[in-house]
Amino acid sequence: RRRGYPEAIYCEGKTAEQVGLIAAEIARHREITTLFTRAGAAHAAAVLAHLPDARYDTTARLLAWPPEPPAPTGRPVVVVAAGTSDLPVAQEAALTARYLGREVELIVDVGVAGLHRILARLDTLRGAGALVVAAGMDGALPSVVGGLVQAPVIALPTSVGYGASFGGIAALLAMLNSCSPGVSVVNIDNGYGAGYLAAQITAPT
Amino acid sequence: RRRGYPEAIYCEGKTAEQVGLIAAEIARHREITTLFTRAGAAHAAAVLAHLPDARYDTTARLLAWPPEPPAPTGRPVVVVAAGTSDLPVAQEAALTARYLGREVELIVDVGVAGLHRILARLDTLRGAGALVVAAGMDGALPSVVGGLVQAPVIALPTSVGYGASFGGIAALLAMLNSCSPGVSVVNIDNGYGAGYLAAQITAPT
Amino acid sequence: RRRGYPEAIYCEGKTAEQVGLIAAEIARHREITTLFTRAGAAHAAAVLAHLPDARYDTTARLLAWPPEPPAPTGRPVVVVAAGTSDLPVAQEAALTARYLGREVELIVDVGVAGLHRILARLDTLRGAGALVVAAGMDGALPSVVGGLVQAPVIALPTSVGYGASFGGIAALLAMLNSCSPGVSVVNIDNGYGAGYLAAQITAPT
Amino acid sequence: RRRGYPEAIYCEGKTAEQVGLIAAEIARHREITTLFTRAGAAHAAAVLAHLPDARYDTTARLLAWPPEPPAPTGRPVVVVAAGTSDLPVAQEAALTARYLGREVELIVDVGVAGLHRILARLDTLRGAGALVVAAGMDGALPSVVGGLVQAPVIALPTSVGYGASFGGIAALLAMLNSCSPGVSVVNIDNGYGAGYLAAQITAPT
Amino acid sequence: RRRGYPEAIYCEGKTAEQVGLIAAEIARHREITTLFTRAGAAHAAAVLAHLPDARYDTTARLLAWPPEPPAPTGRPVVVVAAGTSDLPVAQEAALTARYLGREVELIVDVGVAGLHRILARLDTLRGAGALVVAAGMDGALPSVVGGLVQAPVIALPTSVGYGASFGGIAALLAMLNSCSPGVSVVNIDNGYGAGYLAAQITAPT
Amino acid sequence: RRRGYPEAIYCEGKTAEQVGLIAAEIARHREITTLFTRAGAAHAAAVLAHLPDARYDTTARLLAWPPEPPAPTGRPVVVVAAGTSDLPVAQEAALTARYLGREVELIVDVGVAGLHRILARLDTLRGAGALVVAAGMDGALPSVVGGLVQAPVIALPTSVGYGASFGGIAALLAMLNSCSPGVSVVNIDNGYGAGYLAAQITAPT
Amino acid sequence: RRRGYPEAIYCEGKTAEQVGLIAAEIARHREITTLFTRAGAAHAAAVLAHLPDARYDTTARLLAWPPEPPAPTGRPVVVVAAGTSDLPVAQEAALTARYLGREVELIVDVGVAGLHRILARLDTLRGAGALVVAAGMDGALPSVVGGLVQAPVIALPTSVGYGASFGGIAALLAMLNSCSPGVSVVNIDNGYGAGYLAAQITAPT
Amino acid sequence: RRRGYPEAIYCEGKTAEQVGLIAAEIARHREITTLFTRAGAAHAAAVLAHLPDARYDTTARLLAWPPEPPAPTGRPVVVVAAGTSDLPVAQEAALTARYLGREVELIVDVGVAGLHRILARLDTLRGAGALVVAAGMDGALPSVVGGLVQAPVIALPTSVGYGASFGGIAALLAMLNSCSPGVSVVNIDNGYGAGYLAAQITAPT
Ligand SMILES: Nc1ncnc2c1ncn2[C@@H]1O[C@H](COP(=O)(O)O)[C@@H](O)[C@H]1O
Ligand SMILES: Nc1ncnc2c1ncn2[C@@H]1O[C@H](COP(=O)(O)O)[C@@H](O)[C@H]1O
Ligand SMILES: Nc1ncnc2c1ncn2[C@@H]1O[C@H](COP(=O)(O)O)[C@@H](O)[C@H]1O
Ligand SMILES: Nc1ncnc2c1ncn2[C@@H]1O[C@H](COP(=O)(O)O)[C@@H](O)[C@H]1O
Ligand SMILES: [Mg+2]
Ligand SMILES: [Mg+2]
Ligand SMILES: [Mg+2]
Ligand SMILES: [Mg+2]
Ligand SMILES: [Mg+2]
Ligand SMILES: [Mg+2]
Ligand SMILES: [Mg+2]
Ligand SMILES: [Mg+2]
Repeated sequence: RRRGYPEAIYCEGKTAEQVGLIAAEIARHREITTLFTRAGAAHAAAVLAHLPDARYDTTARLLAWPPEPPAPTGRPVVVVAAGTSDLPVAQEAALTARYLGREVELIVDVGVAGLHRILARLDTLRGAGALVVAAGMDGALPSVVGGLVQAPVIALPTSVGYGASFGGIAALLAMLNSCSPGVSVVNIDNGYGAGYLAAQITAPT
Repeated sequence: RRRGYPEAIYCEGKTAEQVGLIAAEIARHREITTLFTRAGAAHAAAVLAHLPDARYDTTARLLAWPPEPPAPTGRPVVVVAAGTSDLPVAQEAALTARYLGREVELIVDVGVAGLHRILARLDTLRGAGALVVAAGMDGALPSVVGGLVQAPVIALPTSVGYGASFGGIAALLAMLNSCSPGVSVVNIDNGYGAGYLAAQITAPT
Repeated sequence: RRRGYPEAIYCEGKTAEQVGLIAAEIARHREITTLFTRAGAAHAAAVLAHLPDARYDTTARLLAWPPEPPAPTGRPVVVVAAGTSDLPVAQEAALTARYLGREVELIVDVGVAGLHRILARLDTLRGAGALVVAAGMDGALPSVVGGLVQAPVIALPTSVGYGASFGGIAALLAMLNSCSPGVSVVNIDNGYGAGYLAAQITAPT
Repeated sequence: RRRGYPEAIYCEGKTAEQVGLIAAEIARHREITTLFTRAGAAHAAAVLAHLPDARYDTTARLLAWPPEPPAPTGRPVVVVAAGTSDLPVAQEAALTARYLGREVELIVDVGVAGLHRILARLDTLRGAGALVVAAGMDGALPSVVGGLVQAPVIALPTSVGYGASFGGIAALLAMLNSCSPGVSVVNIDNGYGAGYLAAQITAPT
Repeated sequence: RRRGYPEAIYCEGKTAEQVGLIAAEIARHREITTLFTRAGAAHAAAVLAHLPDARYDTTARLLAWPPEPPAPTGRPVVVVAAGTSDLPVAQEAALTARYLGREVELIVDVGVAGLHRILARLDTLRGAGALVVAAGMDGALPSVVGGLVQAPVIALPTSVGYGASFGGIAALLAMLNSCSPGVSVVNIDNGYGAGYLAAQITAPT
Repeated sequence: RRRGYPEAIYCEGKTAEQVGLIAAEIARHREITTLFTRAGAAHAAAVLAHLPDARYDTTARLLAWPPEPPAPTGRPVVVVAAGTSDLPVAQEAALTARYLGREVELIVDVGVAGLHRILARLDTLRGAGALVVAAGMDGALPSVVGGLVQAPVIALPTSVGYGASFGGIAALLAMLNSCSPGVSVVNIDNGYGAGYLAAQITAPT
Repeated sequence: RRRGYPEAIYCEGKTAEQVGLIAAEIARHREITTLFTRAGAAHAAAVLAHLPDARYDTTARLLAWPPEPPAPTGRPVVVVAAGTSDLPVAQEAALTARYLGREVELIVDVGVAGLHRILARLDTLRGAGALVVAAGMDGALPSVVGGLVQAPVIALPTSVGYGASFGGIAALLAMLNSCSPGVSVVNIDNGYGAGYLAAQITAPT
Repeated sequence: RRRGYPEAIYCEGKTAEQVGLIAAEIARHREITTLFTRAGAAHAAAVLAHLPDARYDTTARLLAWPPEPPAPTGRPVVVVAAGTSDLPVAQEAALTARYLGREVELIVDVGVAGLHRILARLDTLRGAGALVVAAGMDGALPSVVGGLVQAPVIALPTSVGYGASFGGIAALLAMLNSCSPGVSVVNIDNGYGAGYLAAQITAPT
């Protein structure tokens, strides 16, 4: 267990068997809260064979055991997704923060092309202790949100887009160049990392 | 004169002497409306020696002769600059559109980090027949403006920024990936091209 | 419905089920003109289950409902494709402009390696209120067309090519550097965006 | 004043005169705590003419007025610089956090090629509420520090290096790919942004 | 046989038949020690049909004939893999060095996010005549190891990672910019080249 | 003398003294036809001190000794420059081909934005045994010329342009992707290489 | 028929049906020599259904009709492939030049890592009127060959390689920077273009 | 002193004063062998003020103190430079290896365009325990040398070149993709690192 937080198993690039062996080990001790991230159907089956009460979220492709997240402590985290295509990555961030012990609210489909939608959620945004803002394509949303709130904004570029989006590079660069102070960036599609950091920032002190 | 519009002389990469020779030629005929773009102090001096009544705008580094622009026709053009550092490029666009015969309004320092500033100018934005939106760094402003207006938006990336702005590439990519339809893009710092296109779109039909 | 224009549903990255749910919703109200873009066979089946009279264009992979486009208003749009491989993207642009209410003419296989073919269509080109010029590989056609017409040219880079075409980057860069004024650029393969913008520019004022 | 924090004036790309005008304005009201960042000698002279008691840090190229930072509140910030060449950027981060109200400790020359140096400072590192870790070249230090502490790490890539460091891109990429969770990244050389975010995270709640 | 070393057949991009023909040729003479690298299941079957006693390592996707490596000479080689995902590439390096005549030790899962793991292996590291250090993502491990040992370090970037790891580019750049002297770099995933070079450096003189 | 052709001394990156020493050596023997390319004023002075009858072309920054080129043999070379800014590079190509023994014609300012200018020169183009076509920005001219002639076209990208021309990369890529067969490409600004190759192709057989 | 040469049909990106329709058209007239390049098994079947005597080369994936090439004229072409993996591309170049009327010799597996192999073929190399040199990975062979012969060298980068070969970019760049004069470059894997150009250069004058 | 080797001070990015302070410190103890690399005239003056007997090599821009290198031990190092423009970087490598205790031979101007020059030096090349091969532009020389010798080859890309050499990237990529085994690569222009590694490899065991 790394530094008091749940263990995380990154399933991509591991076979179902390898992941199953890890799940068996965890099932043996039934002590360590564990997240299996980037878990496809085969990974999920292998985990559920050993930890049948684990919770599998197919949108985020994340398994959590034990299924019940801890009671929330610290300040709330708000996760914002520009479009519905950004939902899997945003959901990975939201569940990670939730299983690390935070209260989490998820806001979807509030891209900058329709400003009224994000402005309608100002109260929720301003209530957060930290925000994760996921966007692909032009990556403009974190700059807009960063100008609306005082809390730190974790910009989460996604690989959503085509052509000159270059698998998330356009969004990543836009976010690194955000003109709003208080914005920092994680790797493309790194929902786990964004949720982890949001939970860290809002942890009870 | 290319297709009824003023002649444009791109001075960068030309010596003051070369530009002076062109100005002398224009002075001889005194017929063709001419813009000298990207003109430094030496270029300006060489032009003014032959066309003393030419107008030199030091911000846009643009000389126009004759100094008086034509009476406006067509629909109005609005040029928006995200920050004051984007002003030279935005001003080149504005003057180009003005000398091609449009009424032009210029709005400066309305970056997305302070949304209230751009929202305060909604009426002006919505009155335009075409808009030029100049921004460097995260290049987010054209997406926001594109969502607020029905007219075409010409996104004008500027080389303003540092680090991962890569001399305007970050802004250029963001603009090419704009989630607002009706947004097209010109080359980095190409204020002349943006103003020319805006004038074309808003020309009387 | 975004600002008076048909609603557009981008199907890529959505499951057939998700698209089917949207089609069902539209079928319920039968009010909103809708385009489903980048729709594969499965997406099309899901839409046609709910909107059996929708029109599916397999070249452009676009579904339109209602199937009949509106009577044309405004000025005509001309869409030019350099090669037959550029046809799907060009067709997406042409249908978009048509369903947004413009008369559209499509010219195919007029690449710059055989200039006589594009020169033979000069009258058509010069009759347009706006042009969309699609090209992959060297992306040279918009520069050539831009020099032949007075109307705005929307350059549409396609991912057609191999090797150093880098999925459309070579064409995109050539177009951003066009020496013809009045040329602006949209994202690689963004036929929808190009057609939308052309319709906007040629809308009745 | 943006959201209760000091005003920041980014001097790069502004003339000494422009910066002097801003300083005069601030001198008139003597109310707003102000940081002038990226200020060269000429900028500094222009500011000091109007605010003679401002403090100028030549390493960070930062001017602060009033010269005395506020009494520290919240949790301490630790700023780490891999090499002495990273000092200017690290110092900009440290002073920014200090003037935003945090206690700040600066650790220099603890690159990963000599691990004992960073390990000797473990207690200081673990006492921080947030850390800024500046590094150029291989950008490896934030990953190492991130594995040693529980607090959030703000990775600050610098343009220090040559050849394949590409002005900080190598460090930026390494940091975005950090295998330690809890690491996020700001723009190359963006000491101001890193210090601002660190102060935000460690603010009293 | 290239310069006294075993012959190496790079199978990727060759059909099973082509590889089988080469194996048949080697089986005819039964003289030349041969490594078949990047060999998939079909390649392996084709080789084993002709050289049934060849050894196939499925992790490294490498076949060796004769199956017994030579008795070790020279100084020992240590191969280090940052994570388990780097194992296939690291194993290719280890087997190559072993079949070229060195004693080889392989250390896995000692990434920089958990420094204690690599520090626990200091004696082994310092006993090597040359080290191969494989890492993907942030590519930080060779810099850390380079600072701990006096022997040459061959940095071996792997394509492990996602997003801004760009298939190993981030790791490659970090390694080229290593602040530890005595570090050189081979191509991404080039386990064979790294193992070959390590064996060359540690050959008996 | 490399293979029967004049010797070429590339001056860029050499000091005036180094170039002077070479000129002195050539002056001693007065036998080898020599071109000094990329020669600035100081280089030229150093050469002329030893070879006072050498010819210095300031546009191409090229010195030739002896000053008289050989009587033309083989087939003629045509060098085409899209714009006047491409003249220095085009002139370097033209002079190189001339001093290697070809008849050379130079055509300037015939960019694709004004097709009539290049079409007016069809006879000259079609009379060439090989053509060099220099262009910066969109690099479209070689594709157009390649479609008009049967002889080989050497595409010569120049660094003329700004923004997304990336110092000639946009032109280089466009040329590599030319849809006209019979087009090959040399390095950006490599007028010497293009002229050399044109002379080689048109040499008497 | 483009300018007296065989017609070429690029099959990649066309369906078997589309290619079959073209073959049917050619079969109707039985007049135009035609090459179908980049033709897979399905394309070949569709062509052979209409032109049963066409010749299909599976290595080059090229179909030629009529199957017999013309009697050779002009000077000979030599095609060199660095490794066997470069053979498909080299073979496409060789067949193209052969069907355009040249005598062609193909030399394979003479990469720069074993210089004696290319030096053993010096007489053949020096007998060529033009050479095509195909290489992937380090792209070094054209520079070496260019220094050994007086005839023009067409450098043909291939996508052979992995990791930092970036699908042929490394070879392409090396070739553009060749230190041997008389080397020009075509697009990655463009065997057709290289063979066409070689035939053009060596055509009878 | 890092691990028994001379101390190295990288002067680029340090002021003359900072370097002078370090020299003063070394002068005080007169114990540690020290190399000052990338030292300009001002740096040299500052060092010589405190260590007047230091040796300054203006080609390599390197200062060494004490001026006499140690008596050679281990096996010899051979440093090869493709062109004279690569000499400064090659010389930095040669001096570094010499001051670290090796016998060093330097071979210059043996680029692959004239193979006979490098083949004439085969005996010297084959006598080396390790080789450093410096080249810019096409970076082809290390592949050629790697095929001629059995000892490890350290490829040293230089920033020599123009256009698509991209400041050494073309050479760097070619070297990473070398088809000769036993070649590894250091950063562009990193003569110090190459020389250090060569000395390490050839150290007495
Ligand atoms: N989705 C994810 N994205 C990035 N990093 C992750 C993710 N999930 C887990 N990790 C990190 O990867 C580590 C586990 O890697 P592994 O040992 O390969 O399973 C965890 O400790 C996390 O730090
Ligand atoms: N600032 C500018 N940016 C881009 N293109 C320009 C600019 N000013 C002028 N041009 C274009 O360059 C052409 C003139 O180029 P030249 O003949 O080199 O002076 C004009 O016809 C315009 O199309
Ligand atoms: N060193 C810096 N790096 C990045 N952004 C900065 C820096 N200093 C100030 N800023 C930001 O730039 C804004 C001021 O920009 P300006 O109005 O152009 O002076 C401030 O509100 C900060 O958000
Ligand atoms: N302008 C040029 N651009 C590229 N290569 C050149 C140029 N001028 C000369 N060269 C080549 O550089 C070689 C001379 O290089 P150097 O020995 O460094 O003077 C000649 O043999 C030519 O092959
Ligand atoms: Mg904020
Ligand atoms: Mg809009
Ligand atoms: Mg036009
Ligand atoms: Mg941490
Ligand atoms: Mg070391
Ligand atoms: Mg042609
Ligand atoms: Mg040659
Ligand atoms: Mg070797």
